[in-house]
Amino acid sequence: MRMVDLIIKKRNGKSLNKEEIAFWINGYTRGEIPDYQSSAMCMAILFKGMSEEEVVNLTDSMVHSGEVLDLSILKGVKVDKHSTGGVGDKTSLILGPMVAACGATFAKLSGRGLSHTGGTLDKLESIPGLTVEIEGHRFIEQVNEIGIAIAGQTQSLVPADKKLYALRDVTGTVESIPLIASSIMSKKLAAGTDTILLDVNVGNGAFMKDINEARTLAKLMVKIGHNLSRDTRAVLSNMNEPLGLAIGNALEVKEAIEALRGKGPSDLMELCYTCGSLILLQAHLDDNLEDARKKLEKVIEDGSAFSLFIKMVEAQGGDIDYILNPNKFVLAKNIIPVKAQKDGYIKEINALEIGLASMLLGGGRTKIEDTIDMAAGIVLNKKVGDIVKENETLCYLHTNKKLDEIKQIIIDVQKAFVISKDFVPKPKVILEVIE
Amino acid sequence: MRMVDLIIKKRNGKSLNKEEIAFWINGYTRGEIPDYQSSAMCMAILFKGMSEEEVVNLTDSMVHSGEVLDLSILKGVKVDKHSTGGVGDKTSLILGPMVAACGATFAKLSGRGLSHTGGTLDKLESIPGLTVEIEGHRFIEQVNEIGIAIAGQTQSLVPADKKLYALRDVTGTVESIPLIASSIMSKKLAAGTDTILLDVNVGNGAFMKDINEARTLAKLMVKIGHNLSRDTRAVLSNMNEPLGLAIGNALEVKEAIEALRGKGPSDLMELCYTCGSLILLQAHLDDNLEDARKKLEKVIEDGSAFSLFIKMVEAQGGDIDYILNPNKFVLAKNIIPVKAQKDGYIKEINALEIGLASMLLGGGRTKIEDTIDMAAGIVLNKKVGDIVKENETLCYLHTNKKLDEIKQIIIDVQKAFVISKDFVPKPKVILEVIE
Repeated sequence: MRMVDLIIKKRNGKSLNKEEIAFWINGYTRGEIPDYQSSAMCMAILFKGMSEEEVVNLTDSMVHSGEVLDLSILKGVKVDKHSTGGVGDKTSLILGPMVAACGATFAKLSGRGLSHTGGTLDKLESIPGLTVEIEGHRFIEQVNEIGIAIAGQTQSLVPADKKLYALRDVTGTVESIPLIASSIMSKKLAAGTDTILLDVNVGNGAFMKDINEARTLAKLMVKIGHNLSRDTRAVLSNMNEPLGLAIGNALEVKEAIEALRGKGPSDLMELCYTCGSLILLQAHLDDNLEDARKKLEKVIEDGSAFSLFIKMVEAQGGDIDYILNPNKFVLAKNIIPVKAQKDGYIKEINALEIGLASMLLGGGRTKIEDTIDMAAGIVLNKKVGDIVKENETLCYLHTNKKLDEIKQIIIDVQKAFVISKDFVPKPKVILEVIE
Repeated sequence: MRMVDLIIKKRNGKSLNKEEIAFWINGYTRGEIPDYQSSAMCMAILFKGMSEEEVVNLTDSMVHSGEVLDLSILKGVKVDKHSTGGVGDKTSLILGPMVAACGATFAKLSGRGLSHTGGTLDKLESIPGLTVEIEGHRFIEQVNEIGIAIAGQTQSLVPADKKLYALRDVTGTVESIPLIASSIMSKKLAAGTDTILLDVNVGNGAFMKDINEARTLAKLMVKIGHNLSRDTRAVLSNMNEPLGLAIGNALEVKEAIEALRGKGPSDLMELCYTCGSLILLQAHLDDNLEDARKKLEKVIEDGSAFSLFIKMVEAQGGDIDYILNPNKFVLAKNIIPVKAQKDGYIKEINALEIGLASMLLGGGRTKIEDTIDMAAGIVLNKKVGDIVKENETLCYLHTNKKLDEIKQIIIDVQKAFVISKDFVPKPKVILEVIE
């Protein structure tokens, strides 16, 4: 078998079989197939697509390019949740304790943030003392003891994806649905949980701008999961405005604490309840969505989800004083209100612009080696559908940068809020559920 | 400027400007842009194409990636001729002396053969003593003295094409018209002649199987030439059977000698006369094709073209006894007739199959480092349109291999001759002229 013949086959629109895909992925992982052939293959896939069978085989090859976690020693049904990356998305911090409090086993491996979307690990690390670098047996122990852990991915999982993603990033081949689907699903499958719930964000602040593309991606990932024997379901959620009110690491942790105390913003809570209900069904802890939702509402009301979050923070070395008294989180030096320039209804809050602004205020990374200012970010005072008066505050920028460094950011954030004279209804956060 | 942004631009179907193309080609030649980005770019170009302006800029960047020959010191109009590669194509050996005998300056840099098509350099080297490795000033001297030289390309010409062609070969990106056109034309332009005549072969034995594709390629190359200030013209010629009767290095040289002595097969001579007439017009040695053709017929009849060929062989160190007495060329040990299995008219001689068979008989290379058996090859006894009787010889295989090594070749060659009961007219060798 020669790699060039496989590239030509794909370029000519033909399907690659299981052995051919394995030849590519194994050879590439071992360094026997060079980057320049893999990048040509990725570009051919971008143009010619892949059949469902090909994507399943690609994902399976990638999963087996490295270690596959065995979580069978853990009690209960192991559940996982993955978001394709939105602005202000702190769902895992709330949803994890919620479903764990209901009896699911939440053993989550998570990632770092890059560009305009934050990462769960970075958010958690804004809690002083907390570590996400938990060694294998300690991770298992923690989950067995308290039912929840959120840790960083180990380097040994899916080496093929690490190489391939880095290559796609510099060769213009990121935007391929089959490659995106296999990249996400290979990591989830290698992490070894019994079920996977996918939150595919759609809108100006998400990777998928278009609902049809998002639906295609979600359906493909659900099919990959089913074909590889995991209960996989997906929701499509709205990312035409940031999720909740807070964007930025410590600010989002504080909002997650509020949410776990029953005072979360409605869009964030709606997403947590919908995802949580689906997860409880996946975990066979309930057989209908209504009852599942009631259970989730109860663990918020009676404080058991919050108490589990505290236990998790404690188990991972975090200072729980910050959780019990969120005012301890140090605020940024400058908190600058951004004002509306006219009366009307908020029609849109460009989440991409808000995410980028938060990053530039210090809250995110432009390069993988950047350090993050945990206190930096943005807190919204208005959401889509709200009425606003001229000169009323739209949001607050939190930053340790000097005022003259952020002049352009203020202008950009102001522009991110589109104000309309006509009435704008509150948008739905859940667009579709795919099972 | 970042290469990944240029790849994405092309992938999205947009045009690259002159600076962007130069950034790629210069960066790639210097090793600053890696193979994996260039291969992704080539695949994007294969799918999305290039505008005429882009191809001109690409060619120009490639030309200037290395040395550009200055032939201005040479007398007369410097003419060049290039064939895209056919089976049995010994045109340059005949055409060169013909146009030089008429007063054109034929300073040709040529290439080696690979796979089923032969190379002019290999053919010339079947003449004992002859060298094609002529140093720069010696090349100039020879052309100034006798008006003709055929030498190997120097390594310093178009390094971008050398790198890019090797990369395309292993990444499934050879079959892109803009990339083929810029590869051919960059080498011709860097070789520094005033005019370029292109022979684009079309048919089962050529790189271009389809006349529409061949026309597109020819027109594009002519436009590149015009845009970069060279008089460039093209003919489309038939390659649905081998050109002439002989295939294989020494066998083709012997046929070229016959042709220069006025006894060439009609299709080969027709191609030489048509190309030659166009070259004389390009060189301003004539202003109409009819008179130009008469001049060319005269230099064949009066022996002046042949005498120039002898001078060239002598100047390049070859033993002219072989030219004056071609029977001196050592024949292969085995000369095996291949017989017709039924009566009829020859409808087709699959030139690709014949070219591959000649290669496998020892006459060509499968890898660049292979050595060639100069005596090996095939001599046709029948051409398309000829009547054939059952058991009559279709062609002779010349080989130093043992008979049991070539059993399959005999079968394949027999199959390459398609015999029809119905009358088959003689095909035209010149399909179109593009100016």
